[in-house]
Amino acid sequence: MAGGGGCVMLRGAQIRDLLDAKHNVLFDCDGVVWNGETAVTGAPEVVSLLKQRGKRVFFVTNNCTRPRENYVQKFSRLGFADVAEEEIFSSAYCSAAYLRDVARLQGKVYVIGCGGVMKELRDAGVPVAEEGDAEPGASIYTCPLDPDVKAVLVGYDENFTFMKLAKACCYLLRILRTGRIGSGSLTAALETASSRKATVIGKPSRFMFDCIASQFGLDPARSLMIGDRLETDVLFGSNCGLTTVLTLTGVSTLQEALAFRDSQEPQQKHCAPDYVMESVADFLQALEE
Amino acid sequence: MAGGGGCVMLRGAQIRDLLDAKHNVLFDCDGVVWNGETAVTGAPEVVSLLKQRGKRVFFVTNNCTRPRENYVQKFSRLGFADVAEEEIFSSAYCSAAYLRDVARLQGKVYVIGCGGVMKELRDAGVPVAEEGDAEPGASIYTCPLDPDVKAVLVGYDENFTFMKLAKACCYLLRILRTGRIGSGSLTAALETASSRKATVIGKPSRFMFDCIASQFGLDPARSLMIGDRLETDVLFGSNCGLTTVLTLTGVSTLQEALAFRDSQEPQQKHCAPDYVMESVADFLQALEE
Repeated sequence: MAGGGGCVMLRGAQIRDLLDAKHNVLFDCDGVVWNGETAVTGAPEVVSLLKQRGKRVFFVTNNCTRPRENYVQKFSRLGFADVAEEEIFSSAYCSAAYLRDVARLQGKVYVIGCGGVMKELRDAGVPVAEEGDAEPGASIYTCPLDPDVKAVLVGYDENFTFMKLAKACCYLLRILRTGRIGSGSLTAALETASSRKATVIGKPSRFMFDCIASQFGLDPARSLMIGDRLETDVLFGSNCGLTTVLTLTGVSTLQEALAFRDSQEPQQKHCAPDYVMESVADFLQALEE
Repeated sequence: MAGGGGCVMLRGAQIRDLLDAKHNVLFDCDGVVWNGETAVTGAPEVVSLLKQRGKRVFFVTNNCTRPRENYVQKFSRLGFADVAEEEIFSSAYCSAAYLRDVARLQGKVYVIGCGGVMKELRDAGVPVAEEGDAEPGASIYTCPLDPDVKAVLVGYDENFTFMKLAKACCYLLRILRTGRIGSGSLTAALETASSRKATVIGKPSRFMFDCIASQFGLDPARSLMIGDRLETDVLFGSNCGLTTVLTLTGVSTLQEALAFRDSQEPQQKHCAPDYVMESVADFLQALEE
């Protein structure tokens, strides 16, 4: 890995030396050779002259909304002469190449994305799962899934919906229905988009216990937390200093509890409950005495 | 922080001792006292007997789709006698309490969520930004924003869309339009939902360079990467062993480049370019000679 560069401001002879030393020039597009629909002044001439001097020029862009043929048109429209489709490497095109040549996909790909990536996939001969028209009243519990889907591709998609997220999740996990998409998934999207960190209110955050304690004056040492999920309920109890009980009538298993107990990772150990019981009904005998 | 519990299987006298030692019992709901629409056998009796023995019982649930009054009805429907709204602490209720009592919100909250959380916010007197009816042809570039919004709340929302994500992002960043939501945000949602890690194709992953190299036989040492974004273009160049140039006609600034160069963090240093130029037009003179 290179990098850790010196940020040297390029001037005069240094520019000539640099160009002499290089045979291939890779350009990003937006912000480099154009901004929106305006070419950066001088950029078309630079690209032409580089080619005349025998350099090979490539364009690498993360924009996956358009197929490469639209890029060719845009280059031409903005005054760049003779930029060929073969010189353009977009994430849409490279995704199609990856699925075909690296992943060697045997089956269909489910796509969260827009026209550009769809076109590149079709051009590359990669079969795409068709998004059936949303039936009235269709829900994440009744949406049809295509058994031939063997990969999921995610790109920029202004038509992104909860349903697409749910479908993609089902395909990835090879399950038919998903109850797995919680607030956390949607929060992760917003955290990434905004570069901000959410304040968590639900378990395992201790805020819900603070809420109870502020109204009822609870002493943690005299309180018991009973739950079925190690990473939320039991961790919540641990975070609040409560004695914790895992019941086996829900999601987590005794094996998972023991794995957390025996983990070397301190954060994982907090998910190990103090006690385990088959069901809350195990309290009955003691209470009826 | 407690935790690191021993996973002791509760039996006989131990159960009695544990109950004697505790005054407050907190239950998660789904998987503990019921599963869907079926009460866990014996659970209603356990809750009643705990109360008769003078224990205080609370229910803490991360489900934010329903307001607490629906929980009261569900408890009653499934045979739990006398569970009161005051004993139920849902993430919807606690989110409203947080915004009112802790954040002391002066203004409105923009909500990604469903009926349950809306009802709790209204009951708590927290003003909610109304989601205007989507006008035909409304896009993320024309959607109206409410200047009074001072907080964003994210919960489970089957009507989640790209538009809601874009709006929430604008509110968090106090900006009017967002071009910030890329594939990464949507990928983050799916990674969280599926507990799987995506293979990145776009920059800064080196796959796009491999793609070019496989077709054109590029020598990294003789190749130049010119971009306007340090975390994608320059890092991509570094990852591929290319000489990197930042142009200042786009997103990243010279100050940001120098900050990466002077960072102590190795991963950050890879975002520092070898060279900086005002514009690709700075190549013109050297090329015209």
